[in-house]
Amino acid sequence: MIIDCHGHYTTAPAALQQFRDSQLAGLKSGVDATLSSATPISDDQIRDSLENAQLKLQRARGTDLTIFSPRASAMAHHIGNETTSLRWTHACNDLIHRVCTLYPDNFAGVCQLPQSPGAPPANSAAELGRCVNELGFVGCNLNPDPSGGHWTSPPLTDPHWYPLYEKMVELDVPAMVHVSSSCNPNFHATGAHYINADTTAFMQFLTSDLFKDFPTLRFIIPHGGGAVPYHWGRYRGLAQDLKRPLLGEYLLKNIFFDTCVYHLPGIELLLKVIPADNIIFGSEMVGAVRGIDPQTGQFFDDTKRYLDALPLSDPDRYKIFEGNARKVFPRLTARLARQR
Amino acid sequence: MIIDCHGHYTTAPAALQQFRDSQLAGLKSGVDATLSSATPISDDQIRDSLENAQLKLQRARGTDLTIFSPRASAMAHHIGNETTSLRWTHACNDLIHRVCTLYPDNFAGVCQLPQSPGAPPANSAAELGRCVNELGFVGCNLNPDPSGGHWTSPPLTDPHWYPLYEKMVELDVPAMVHVSSSCNPNFHATGAHYINADTTAFMQFLTSDLFKDFPTLRFIIPHGGGAVPYHWGRYRGLAQDLKRPLLGEYLLKNIFFDTCVYHLPGIELLLKVIPADNIIFGSEMVGAVRGIDPQTGQFFDDTKRYLDALPLSDPDRYKIFEGNARKVFPRLTARLARQR
Repeated sequence: MIIDCHGHYTTAPAALQQFRDSQLAGLKSGVDATLSSATPISDDQIRDSLENAQLKLQRARGTDLTIFSPRASAMAHHIGNETTSLRWTHACNDLIHRVCTLYPDNFAGVCQLPQSPGAPPANSAAELGRCVNELGFVGCNLNPDPSGGHWTSPPLTDPHWYPLYEKMVELDVPAMVHVSSSCNPNFHATGAHYINADTTAFMQFLTSDLFKDFPTLRFIIPHGGGAVPYHWGRYRGLAQDLKRPLLGEYLLKNIFFDTCVYHLPGIELLLKVIPADNIIFGSEMVGAVRGIDPQTGQFFDDTKRYLDALPLSDPDRYKIFEGNARKVFPRLTARLARQR
Repeated sequence: MIIDCHGHYTTAPAALQQFRDSQLAGLKSGVDATLSSATPISDDQIRDSLENAQLKLQRARGTDLTIFSPRASAMAHHIGNETTSLRWTHACNDLIHRVCTLYPDNFAGVCQLPQSPGAPPANSAAELGRCVNELGFVGCNLNPDPSGGHWTSPPLTDPHWYPLYEKMVELDVPAMVHVSSSCNPNFHATGAHYINADTTAFMQFLTSDLFKDFPTLRFIIPHGGGAVPYHWGRYRGLAQDLKRPLLGEYLLKNIFFDTCVYHLPGIELLLKVIPADNIIFGSEMVGAVRGIDPQTGQFFDDTKRYLDALPLSDPDRYKIFEGNARKVFPRLTARLARQR
């Protein structure tokens, strides 16, 4: 089977955004909107939102299951306070759960966390536990910068984050390192902030002993690892200059890259420098880039085509399209076994 | 000839750092150290600092001339106030001038600017004028984030920066977009902040009409363009989604990438996706990565080797190693003609 590890519910029914809009309007006028104020979303509305988008694209591209999370740019942890974030997070995660219940063969859930600038990550552990234990989710998206482009939190390797990591280890779920929208005008969200966060997180991991403290903690760095594979020589050299362990012997036990790189030469480079054991198929669809590449006549984000165009061995192909996702998301593997 | 567009004086005599240390110590105790308090640096000290480093590497690698600027990580525009920055900048630029005077065949100067958080870029125009008109410099390094990792300035495309651009256009000199050290613990300087700034600047340029306002303004985005070439499909796709002009028809008239990418697959990708007209040879030596790659037995930053290993046509080879640098730095071309 072909598992896409990186899909967001960017096409959710309008009622979700209406709740968010009323929540944000409330913030301005001092009314703390609750989810009960939201217009209910019917199953048919959910089906409609997916049939002509993610499901159609799965069929067209020949992929089977998408590891699915709320729209990343809409997490916007920087807006409002921790209660705002928690209510919005509940709404988004509950909707993902409904998607996964309606289409258990097509989607497995990954949750947004109720992060908020300054809020302790321990406070996200409860929602992670709810999503995994009660809703059957298989992982989470962790925002290394809840401030939305001001980077006011400690690095991901700081003990600040450890209570959340303890929960991740206890539940045996990975996190995708994924920022949200940027309220810093310097950073375009999908064109700069996303990619920068990927690169930043990798270098934080490279310079720390985090994985000595948490040997089984696993992170996916999305968007093909930001700038990292392109600068793989730089990172190998920096690790050496800084007297850090070889990347293959340390970081790559815990770090995985997805394949959200939207042209053949980029995917080719990724496969050339990163071991197949550390690459997980992903497309980010429906996501950051929605158009058709005039050079190929195909969707930019149809990353399976780039992989299919390269001479992969059968074992490597299995790892990238299925095996690594099963390894990194053991709860997905367990779920698939139950569904069989 | 072979022109390296990206070298920093990372090996300056210790007296330079002593001045800086005394300046920083003074800041703490309310004494505003001036350059006259610095230990003089002799010509022999300058020669010693270069002979066994940059000059030796030029000879060993077969390069001729380095476009040379003060140590980027030491610019540290976030430290102290505008006067601190101006004095330190004068010291650094004057030393580069002495290098270029002692070795006119080996080095051409690029200046640091006396930027400071909140200070108007217009205030950097005078030092740029001094360096170009009086010291014969051919360009400048422009820091898009004088705050050192907090990103508090407006984007490079904001009219905030226009007075400096007017001076650049008047003098016909380009800028390399180059941040300095980071005082934000999230960002490792050479492993994250540098690369992020490159990616960030490119996306700022992509989303703006800056080059309609300044058709002859030229920027070099160093470190191989950050993450941009690896994600070239993403950027082509974003430009299309955002109804921006095709990258080749707009941005690439004004934007150039250096070749500071420290492994063969990265350089191969760069050459595959970016037109040869927009690539300028650079090595960043002696710089970010100083070790020898155990996989090749050669210095990571000997980027000429990677280019030499690839099948470049003679015209492309000329552009990358010489022609583009002459085009982007017309004052270098004029200087070389005078020296002949």
